[in-house]
Amino acid sequence: MRVGVLTGGGDCPGLNAVIRAIVRKGVQEYGYDFIGFRDGWRGPLEGETVPLSIPAVRGILPRGGTILGSSRTNPLNAEHGVRRIRDNLAKYEVDALVTIGGEDTLGVAATLSDDYGIPCVGVPKTIDNDLSATDYTFGFDTAVGIATEAIDRLHTTAESHMRVLVVEVMGRHAGWIALHSGLAGGANVILIPEQRFDIEQVCAWVTSRFRASYAPIVVVAEGAMPAEGEMILKDGSHDSFGHVRLSGVGEWLAKEIERRTGKEARTTVLGHVQRGGTPSAFDRWLATRFGLHAIEAVRDGDFGVMVALRGTDIVRVPIAEATARLKTVDPALYAEVGVFFG
Amino acid sequence: MRVGVLTGGGDCPGLNAVIRAIVRKGVQEYGYDFIGFRDGWRGPLEGETVPLSIPAVRGILPRGGTILGSSRTNPLNAEHGVRRIRDNLAKYEVDALVTIGGEDTLGVAATLSDDYGIPCVGVPKTIDNDLSATDYTFGFDTAVGIATEAIDRLHTTAESHMRVLVVEVMGRHAGWIALHSGLAGGANVILIPEQRFDIEQVCAWVTSRFRASYAPIVVVAEGAMPAEGEMILKDGSHDSFGHVRLSGVGEWLAKEIERRTGKEARTTVLGHVQRGGTPSAFDRWLATRFGLHAIEAVRDGDFGVMVALRGTDIVRVPIAEATARLKTVDPALYAEVGVFFG
Amino acid sequence: MRVGVLTGGGDCPGLNAVIRAIVRKGVQEYGYDFIGFRDGWRGPLEGETVPLSIPAVRGILPRGGTILGSSRTNPLNAEHGVRRIRDNLAKYEVDALVTIGGEDTLGVAATLSDDYGIPCVGVPKTIDNDLSATDYTFGFDTAVGIATEAIDRLHTTAESHMRVLVVEVMGRHAGWIALHSGLAGGANVILIPEQRFDIEQVCAWVTSRFRASYAPIVVVAEGAMPAEGEMILKDGSHDSFGHVRLSGVGEWLAKEIERRTGKEARTTVLGHVQRGGTPSAFDRWLATRFGLHAIEAVRDGDFGVMVALRGTDIVRVPIAEATARLKTVDPALYAEVGVFFG
Amino acid sequence: MRVGVLTGGGDCPGLNAVIRAIVRKGVQEYGYDFIGFRDGWRGPLEGETVPLSIPAVRGILPRGGTILGSSRTNPLNAEHGVRRIRDNLAKYEVDALVTIGGEDTLGVAATLSDDYGIPCVGVPKTIDNDLSATDYTFGFDTAVGIATEAIDRLHTTAESHMRVLVVEVMGRHAGWIALHSGLAGGANVILIPEQRFDIEQVCAWVTSRFRASYAPIVVVAEGAMPAEGEMILKDGSHDSFGHVRLSGVGEWLAKEIERRTGKEARTTVLGHVQRGGTPSAFDRWLATRFGLHAIEAVRDGDFGVMVALRGTDIVRVPIAEATARLKTVDPALYAEVGVFFG
Repeated sequence: MRVGVLTGGGDCPGLNAVIRAIVRKGVQEYGYDFIGFRDGWRGPLEGETVPLSIPAVRGILPRGGTILGSSRTNPLNAEHGVRRIRDNLAKYEVDALVTIGGEDTLGVAATLSDDYGIPCVGVPKTIDNDLSATDYTFGFDTAVGIATEAIDRLHTTAESHMRVLVVEVMGRHAGWIALHSGLAGGANVILIPEQRFDIEQVCAWVTSRFRASYAPIVVVAEGAMPAEGEMILKDGSHDSFGHVRLSGVGEWLAKEIERRTGKEARTTVLGHVQRGGTPSAFDRWLATRFGLHAIEAVRDGDFGVMVALRGTDIVRVPIAEATARLKTVDPALYAEVGVFFG
Repeated sequence: MRVGVLTGGGDCPGLNAVIRAIVRKGVQEYGYDFIGFRDGWRGPLEGETVPLSIPAVRGILPRGGTILGSSRTNPLNAEHGVRRIRDNLAKYEVDALVTIGGEDTLGVAATLSDDYGIPCVGVPKTIDNDLSATDYTFGFDTAVGIATEAIDRLHTTAESHMRVLVVEVMGRHAGWIALHSGLAGGANVILIPEQRFDIEQVCAWVTSRFRASYAPIVVVAEGAMPAEGEMILKDGSHDSFGHVRLSGVGEWLAKEIERRTGKEARTTVLGHVQRGGTPSAFDRWLATRFGLHAIEAVRDGDFGVMVALRGTDIVRVPIAEATARLKTVDPALYAEVGVFFG
Repeated sequence: MRVGVLTGGGDCPGLNAVIRAIVRKGVQEYGYDFIGFRDGWRGPLEGETVPLSIPAVRGILPRGGTILGSSRTNPLNAEHGVRRIRDNLAKYEVDALVTIGGEDTLGVAATLSDDYGIPCVGVPKTIDNDLSATDYTFGFDTAVGIATEAIDRLHTTAESHMRVLVVEVMGRHAGWIALHSGLAGGANVILIPEQRFDIEQVCAWVTSRFRASYAPIVVVAEGAMPAEGEMILKDGSHDSFGHVRLSGVGEWLAKEIERRTGKEARTTVLGHVQRGGTPSAFDRWLATRFGLHAIEAVRDGDFGVMVALRGTDIVRVPIAEATARLKTVDPALYAEVGVFFG
Repeated sequence: MRVGVLTGGGDCPGLNAVIRAIVRKGVQEYGYDFIGFRDGWRGPLEGETVPLSIPAVRGILPRGGTILGSSRTNPLNAEHGVRRIRDNLAKYEVDALVTIGGEDTLGVAATLSDDYGIPCVGVPKTIDNDLSATDYTFGFDTAVGIATEAIDRLHTTAESHMRVLVVEVMGRHAGWIALHSGLAGGANVILIPEQRFDIEQVCAWVTSRFRASYAPIVVVAEGAMPAEGEMILKDGSHDSFGHVRLSGVGEWLAKEIERRTGKEARTTVLGHVQRGGTPSAFDRWLATRFGLHAIEAVRDGDFGVMVALRGTDIVRVPIAEATARLKTVDPALYAEVGVFFG
C-alpha cells in the first residue's frame, strides 16, 4: 500500500504536524509506504514528488509552513487535469491520496473521489475556521493567540494615551479570528464581515469608551465593510487571487474615526504574522489527531470523507458536505459578545 | 436582584475572566447588583465580602488568579455551616449565588442547591480538565501551552547532548496535561496516572530513541506510578491537603533511568508555573462564555445547574451529575498517541 | 525630604519599573516621602498629583504603561510655566524631582535645573534607543523582541509561498529597532532613516533572494525614505504631533516592489504593539537599576544629571549633554550587517 | 584560506547564530572556505568533520543547539592530543580555527594558540555569564527571560494562595541568572552561590512578606549554599561531570522553610529548559556580532584572541586573560538589589 500526501492553499500552522502523524502511524502501525506530492494539486498534476518517510518527518511537529510546499493550482481547470492525475498516481503506484487543505483543495478531492473514483481522504485546513462540519480547524487557535497577544500589548498604550487603536486581523469572509481575539483581548469594538458596520455606531462606542477614561481598541476583520456601501479602498487594488488587498479597512477606519471624533487613531496590521510560525499546543493536538484519523480512514478504505472535530472526538464526514457552505459567525453569537462593546 | 459570586479551590487562569463576564452582563443587560464573597465558601460562611461592580472588574480579563481570593473551606464540615451561609445570604440580601470551582466547591453548591434550596449556579474550574460533563475546563489550555513550550525548549538540548530529559507536569489523578503537552511537544514517552507504567518499558523506549541518534524526552504526570508497586517517595512526604508532594516521580524516574540505562538524565519540574499567569486566548474565550451563560441561568431561575462546553456550545447540566465522577484519560485515546512513543 | 516623580512622552515598557525602584529604595533606605505628578510636566504645572508609596508601587514591575500617566506638555511654552512649577513644588513641599522621559521631557528638566535651580534628576526613556550618553534605554529591548518574533513567524510563510513580506517597525529618526530586529530576525533587507534607500537596489536584493528559492523579508523603519526624493505618502497626512503618519512607507514599499518585480508583496505594520505590554527581563533590569541610581543621585544632591548605562555600570551624565544630539545608527555598523542582505 | 569551526561545552542558545555569521561573512566578504568540526574538540582530535557553507547555515539563526554538535572532550588530556589536532588540521588544510565555547573550550584554544602556535580565535559562550572580559555572553539573556517568565506566572499563585514558591535556576558557581531573573521577576528573596545564605534570614524575609498579605517567591541558584555548612543533599549524588545534581537546593529550601515557618512551600526546577530553544533577540544580535568580528580577527591574522562585548562595541582580548578567573556577582551589586528582599 502506497499513500500520497499533499497540502494545498494558504499557509497554516499545523500542516507539518498532520503530515508527521499520517506518516508515523501509516508506517509503524500499517506498514504503508508514502510519497509526498509537491505544491498541492500541482504535485500529482505535474508528477512532482518528494520522499516521505519517518526520518523525513522527524522534528517537523513544531514548525510552521509545510515541508511539501503548497499552491492554489486547481487541476480541474487544467487541460486533461483528471487524466494526468490518474496517470501520475498510477505511475507512482499510489493507492490512496490524503489531501490537506481548505475549501478549494478539498473541493477538488470531493470531485475526484465522488465523480472519478480516485481514492481521496480529506483533512480540513483553514486559518479562518470557516469550514462547516468541524468545530475547529487547526491554525485558527494559533492565529487567535497571536492577535490576542497584540491586543494585550495595546492595552497599556490605550491606558496611558488617549488614542484609538485599530487592529486589523485576518478574515475575508468570516469573522472568527476577529471575534475570538477581540473577545479574548478585551476589545471594545469588534467588526466582522458577516455584518456591515455603522461607522456612526463605531464612533459612538469609541466616544463612550473615552468617557470611561480609557482609550478604545477596535478589532476589525479585513473583510468587514461599512454599512453605507461606500468604497473603503479608493484605489480598489486587488491581490493576485482577486481578493481585496490586505490592510485596507484598518487604515480606512482609523482615518474615519479621527475625522469624525477628533481623536487620534493608530492602526496595527498583523498580516501574515498570523499564519506563520510554530502552532499552538491546541493546534498541534488537533492537527496530529486529524492525521492519525485520516490514515485510519485510508486503512478502512473509507474514501471521499474528511476528518472533523466534534467536541473532543474526531469523526468522518463526506467531503462534499463539508465544503458545501462557509461557516460564518452566527448573529446570536455576535450579539452575545456585544455586551463588551463600548 | 442581587447576585453573589465566589471562587473556590486551586489557582486557575481564567477565574477573573468568568467574574468579569458575569458582572458585565448582569449589570448591563439585566440590571443586577453584585456582591463578591471572599475566599471561596469561607466568604458566605463568615460573611466576608468584597464589592463587585463594572469598575471593579475592569482590566482583570488577562490577569491570572482571582480578585475574590480562594480557599478550600468546606462549609458542610463547619458547625452550623448551612445555617450560617443562609443567614449571611439573607443579611446581604443575596438572591442567587454563582459558584466557580472544581469538584469540591461545586459539590457543596450541589448539596446547598439540591438539599437546602439555596439558589446556586455552578461554573466548572479545574486546571486538570478532569471534570465530567464538559469537553474542557478553562485553565487547562494555558497549562498545556506552558508545558509544551518547556518541552519545545528541551528538544535542542536533547539534540545536542545525549541526555534523557524528564519533565514532570501537573495531574495527580488524571493525565490530561501530560497527554496533551506530551503529544504537542513531541515527547517520546508519556506517563499518566490512569495506567501504571513499567519502568523496563520506559527504559526500552529511552534506549531505542538513543539508537535513532536523538535523546529522549519523557513527560510524566505527577500522579503517575510504576507498575511494580514500589514506593516512589522514600520519605513519603505529603502536603497539607494530604496529597503526595510535588516533584517526586520526575526525580525518581530520572534516577531509575540513569541506573538502568547508564545514560545521564535531568529533570524539569514545572510546578505552579503551570497554574499562574495570563490565560491563553482559548481559556479567556471559554471562561468568558461560561460567565455569560452562568448569569443567563440565574436570570432563568435555573438553579442547581452548571454551565458546560459541548463542542462549541455552552449548555447546562445538573451540578450533581457533573461532579459524580472524575473524567480520566480513556485507554483508547492513550493507545492512540502511543504510536509516537520510543 | 519629599521627592516628586513624573513620566513624560510616549509609552515605553519599563516606566513602572523605574517608579517602583525609586520609591522602594527612597522609602526603605533613605526614609523619603514621595509624591507623583500626573501626566508628565502637566502635573507640576497644574498641580495635579497622585499618592506614591510602597503599597502604590506593589505589583507594577511587570506592567507596561505608567501609573503616573504621561503627556507631551512642555511647561516652557506655557504662560508663567516655570513660576507655576516652582509654586507647585513649594506648595507640595517637594525637595527634588525625578523626571523620566525622552529628549523633550529631559530637555525641560535640564533647563529647569541648569537655568532655574530647580533640583531635577533625569532618567532616560526612549523606545527608539536614540538618546546619546547611554548604551541602551529601556523599552528598546522589548520592542526589538516583539518585532523579531513577528519576523520569525513570517519566515514560514516566506518559505511556503513566493511572496515578499514587508515589516514596518518603529523609528522615525533612528533605525535601531529596524537594525536589531532585522538582524535578529534574519531579514534580507533592512532600511533605516539614517540612509536613504535605492528602490532599485531593494528590488535587486528581493530578486536575488527569490533565486535562492526563498522569499525575502524586508524590514523597514517607519522613517526610512527612498533616495530619489519622491513623496512616499500621496496624501501627506500627519499625526497631531506633526509626524508623518504611521504605516506609510511599508505599504508604499510593498506596492513599489510588486510593480517593479512582478512579485506579490504583503505588509505587516506592528504599530503601537511595539510599545505596549510587559517589559522584557533586560528592560526590567535596566529600568530598575536606573531607578535605584536616580534616587541615589537625589540623596547625593547631584542635580541636573541623568543616569545612563555604560557597559554594565550605571553612571551619571549632565542631562544637557545627553539630550544635545540624537544617537543615530553609525554607517559602519549598518555596513557590518549588510553582509546579510539579499 | 580554509577556516575550521567548532562548538564545545554545554548547550547555549545562539551557537548557530555565531556559526552562521562566521560563514556568511567569511564566504561573502573574504572568499574563505569552511569546514565544521564535530562535537567540540573531539572533531579536530578524531578528524570528524561536517561540511560548512552558506546553504548549510541557512535558517539556523533562530534555532537553539548547535549544528556542529558539542562535547566536553579535552584534547590536552588525550594521548598525543596536540599532535593529532595539528595533523588533522593539516590533513584538512585548515589555516585557522574559530572555537566557540566556555572556560574549558577556550582554555584549550589559549594553550594551543599560545604554546603550540595553532591559530585559534575564540568566541565566548556561557549561559551563566561568568566569563571575565566580556560584559555579557549570549545565551544568558535567553535564560534570564525564561526564568523571569516562570516567576511572573508564579505571582498570581502567590497572590491567591498563601504558599511560599521556590524557583531553582541555573548557576553553579555564579549567581547571574538568579540575580537578573529574580530582580526582573520581582522575587522577594534571591540566593546566589557567591554568598552563603542564612536560612534564618530567609525565613524572616518569608515571614515578613506574609505579613504584607502576599506570599513570597524565593529564587535560588542551583549552586547556592546555606551558611551553616550543613549538607544540602543527603544522598550526595553527582552527575557525570562531577557536579552536584540539579534540583537539590530548591527542594531542600522548600522543606526547610516549611519546617521552620509552618507555611507550605512548593518548588519549580526549570533545569535544561533554560538552555534550550530559540535565542532572544538580544542573544541573536550578540552572537551574530561575535561571529562577524571573530572572522575579522581571522582575516587580520590576530590569533590567541577572543571577541568580547564592551558596552555596545565588540573588542578583542587575549583568550588566556579572559579565562583566567570566573566573573562572579560583585557583593556591591548583590547589596544593591537587596532593597527588594523581604
